[in-house]
Amino acid sequence: MADQDRNIISIDDIRRAYERIKPYIRHTPLLDAYNLKGQVGCRAYFKPEMLQYVGAFKLRGALNAVLSMTPAERARGIITSSSGNHAQACAFAGQVLGIPVTVVIPEDAPHVKVENAKAMGANVILWDRDADARWVKVHEEVEKHGYNIVHPYEDPRVMAGQGTMALEILEDEPDMDMFIVPIGGGGLISGVATAVKEYRPEKKVIGVQAANSAAYYESRKAGKQMSVECLPTVADGLSCRRAADHAFSVIERYVDDIVTVEEDEIVEAVRCVANKAKLIAEPSSCVGVAALLYNKIDVKPENKVVTVLTAGNWDIADLGHMYVGDQIKSVK
Amino acid sequence: MADQDRNIISIDDIRRAYERIKPYIRHTPLLDAYNLKGQVGCRAYFKPEMLQYVGAFKLRGALNAVLSMTPAERARGIITSSSGNHAQACAFAGQVLGIPVTVVIPEDAPHVKVENAKAMGANVILWDRDADARWVKVHEEVEKHGYNIVHPYEDPRVMAGQGTMALEILEDEPDMDMFIVPIGGGGLISGVATAVKEYRPEKKVIGVQAANSAAYYESRKAGKQMSVECLPTVADGLSCRRAADHAFSVIERYVDDIVTVEEDEIVEAVRCVANKAKLIAEPSSCVGVAALLYNKIDVKPENKVVTVLTAGNWDIADLGHMYVGDQIKSVK
Repeated sequence: MADQDRNIISIDDIRRAYERIKPYIRHTPLLDAYNLKGQVGCRAYFKPEMLQYVGAFKLRGALNAVLSMTPAERARGIITSSSGNHAQACAFAGQVLGIPVTVVIPEDAPHVKVENAKAMGANVILWDRDADARWVKVHEEVEKHGYNIVHPYEDPRVMAGQGTMALEILEDEPDMDMFIVPIGGGGLISGVATAVKEYRPEKKVIGVQAANSAAYYESRKAGKQMSVECLPTVADGLSCRRAADHAFSVIERYVDDIVTVEEDEIVEAVRCVANKAKLIAEPSSCVGVAALLYNKIDVKPENKVVTVLTAGNWDIADLGHMYVGDQIKSVK
Repeated sequence: MADQDRNIISIDDIRRAYERIKPYIRHTPLLDAYNLKGQVGCRAYFKPEMLQYVGAFKLRGALNAVLSMTPAERARGIITSSSGNHAQACAFAGQVLGIPVTVVIPEDAPHVKVENAKAMGANVILWDRDADARWVKVHEEVEKHGYNIVHPYEDPRVMAGQGTMALEILEDEPDMDMFIVPIGGGGLISGVATAVKEYRPEKKVIGVQAANSAAYYESRKAGKQMSVECLPTVADGLSCRRAADHAFSVIERYVDDIVTVEEDEIVEAVRCVANKAKLIAEPSSCVGVAALLYNKIDVKPENKVVTVLTAGNWDIADLGHMYVGDQIKSVK
């Protein structure tokens, strides 16, 4: 009972995280999406975290995790498993703070991600495509070298770091009414929802998942943590087979609603962000915009609604393949 | 002699312009291009004016022109000729300030630009492709209706408005050493160079032209205003057959150097801005980045160098056509 009453992180953790990471991150601008007025039924804003260093919000959590460690812990170094933005974020944090970083990356990951991590000084271990197999490798390395694990979404220090984004948004626009946040592993929305609900509980937090990978959506419906089959999705950064323990608990406590969007809706949202906001957004980034464009969320014309654009690590050649010709092509 | 000693605009004009337009524009962020470090020999920054309302810096000049008018002048409305961003900027300024706007647009201009201008309430006159013929039409309309002309680059109010960008940059980074600015008609660099040289004359201003449309580059070499043949260029927004009177005079007075970049260099710069800065930039926007990437400008590792990214009004389908396949395809 006592355990159920306590959230894994608190607003105080997020405030402390903000103080810790502030000197190292970019306070990304809050952009009013004035030219979307006719297409969405509210006053829309974007929080463009593709403009964050390493092109993704993930830096916030990685930095807070490392900066929360003792000097002795830092000296032992960190390790994580990720094929995407969290690996880059850990590599960047390690480079900036001068600590050793090891990332276990799927052997078939895009070459550029491997090279980027190496260029930032990370020790890259290419390993199995299967996520579970890679975590086994992580634990072997920890046994051998004493590294500290920084999990991409279940680590409370990472959640708290991601939540700092909500404090920035409220600094720039205290009257924001609603926060729309993509859900993949669930770390970002756990941080944002905790910040919002423990600081300004009258404001709404809405999670958005790709319909093809909707573990949290299904879990809410079922009233318990569920595993789902993940179909391929252009929003590959959001793929997540099972609602995670900590994240599920925070989301059920604090997130007002979870909605899903279809593949073609996500693709249209990528185009919309590019053409209207002039930003390169990963498809995973755009599920919130898709939800607004396709009326999945109940908003009023006077509502100020911010959609988090999480990341932009996507080659424009892929954008090209997506939009040349009339049909949606598969995107790596 | 007296005339030669006076610049067409002054730092005071630009300061006043800044006060006038501040409530209506977005103070665009100054982004340090930390991940370009290995590719350019300096500490590079971007001023991303594609994040400006209407997706282009042009709004600054258009707003300053209108806000400088008397109420009686405003009531008569404004007119301009432009196929591109200046027309959108005038339409937006008119919509915000509630004054009538007429834009004369080439009959073969992209449909979306015509629709955008109309959506913002502008009266659109579709006219000849030839720029001179369109200016004849503008003057006919002025005769008939008493509109005020807002020229896209020769109007000193427009120049002063564009110059406000330099004040914003210096507000965010007083230690900026160098300003790299694309030159098309010359209005933007006239404003920026005046602001910089009359406020912090120790700082450098470098102009960049597409080699295929290099009227100001050739004019500087010749020591007098020249007309040049304009070859097709992906940087179509910079096409300009002849160095304009006012702009040429300001540029010769205040711009330290003018360099040119080739078509393939511009295309690579568009890719670089998309992949490294996550911004959609028109090719015209990227000539400064191209100049840095291809070592056209003498910089030192410790120099802080800002490149203005002027605009982003470009459909991502065009980006797609540009990058799908290995060859550079023609871009509308």
